[in-house]
Amino acid sequence: MKILFNEIYVRSHERIELIDITGEIERIIKESGIKNGFCIIFVPHATATLIINEHESGLLTDIVNKIKELFPLNAQYQHNIIDDNAHAHIASSIIGSEKIFPIKDGRIIRGTWQNIFLVELDGPRSQRRIIVEVIGD
Amino acid sequence: MKILFNEIYVRSHERIELIDITGEIERIIKESGIKNGFCIIFVPHATATLIINEHESGLLTDIVNKIKELFPLNAQYQHNIIDDNAHAHIASSIIGSEKIFPIKDGRIIRGTWQNIFLVELDGPRSQRRIIVEVIGD
Amino acid sequence: MKILFNEIYVRSHERIELIDITGEIERIIKESGIKNGFCIIFVPHATATLIINEHESGLLTDIVNKIKELFPLNAQYQHNIIDDNAHAHIASSIIGSEKIFPIKDGRIIRGTWQNIFLVELDGPRSQRRIIVEVIGD
Repeated sequence: MKILFNEIYVRSHERIELIDITGEIERIIKESGIKNGFCIIFVPHATATLIINEHESGLLTDIVNKIKELFPLNAQYQHNIIDDNAHAHIASSIIGSEKIFPIKDGRIIRGTWQNIFLVELDGPRSQRRIIVEVIGD
Repeated sequence: MKILFNEIYVRSHERIELIDITGEIERIIKESGIKNGFCIIFVPHATATLIINEHESGLLTDIVNKIKELFPLNAQYQHNIIDDNAHAHIASSIIGSEKIFPIKDGRIIRGTWQNIFLVELDGPRSQRRIIVEVIGD
Repeated sequence: MKILFNEIYVRSHERIELIDITGEIERIIKESGIKNGFCIIFVPHATATLIINEHESGLLTDIVNKIKELFPLNAQYQHNIIDDNAHAHIASSIIGSEKIFPIKDGRIIRGTWQNIFLVELDGPRSQRRIIVEVIGD
């Protein structure tokens, strides 16, 4: 089995924002030459997360609104005595930092309506890093 | 290391419903002959998800109720201008699409109270597909 | 590829509590001798979970408070007719039971502010078990 590491870098423009990284993930898998195996996508940040869903603009707005509702920016947080982004840490800790996809016949297995998004929770940021590890034969 | 792909198909009967797939997952792992490794369970749908917990009927009702409370069916969603299932997309994006289990001595590692459920979020549907990838020696 | 299994045991002291296990995870990876691969961390309990975030005491309080807010201990739950910990089962089922980390050059890939916590949801308990599977070359 081969083990290959890649990185994706994205810039965010809003406080909370979904950024579609599906094309870059698929390019990395294609270039890896790996036919069967799997792919780990990992965000090494405590104020960002990853989600998988449909790239429909209304839905992206709905997801941002739900994150703001479940993890409001201006609630009473202990962490905000020393910083101003507790909502982002809490959302990241509950939604999670990694995704794993099967790879079969040289392609990621995903549904028609499953795009892959980095979710910025405390932007804008000039650079967010995503680790993409591809493992297989 | 061997890499094996299987699929499970289930039918759902309710709008929101938990369907226990533990037995089918364990059968696939047994038939794979793999002794040590791991198993990726992946749902290629944007309106379903997977959870791990106890198969107790009262608890299954509680989980359905909590999903309906956190992701209400009839709130104001942008996505529902073109469809009627934004709640399902949002719940799927936050709860996630995949699970990974260690396999040791030919058996999945799971706790006594950890069954594996497909969660239908936008049923009933005649067919939901679950990818099961088993990797190991 | 090598496949190694380890276990961590922790004791909890509160009903809901975050316990930092980063040091023990990193020790296991170091002692495995595996240079490149990945690590699966799995909790075989239906009333505990895992999260990744910053070890800042105010934030840990905020995360406990958010869990109590989203999954209140004393709501009306069907499961509590036969037990008293439905909140813990529901939180565990939605937050999840496993994490996966890339390993590169003998070290886990994680961000500066990403520590790894067992989250006790129904403590105190004299023993909680965490499976750590390290796979790679």
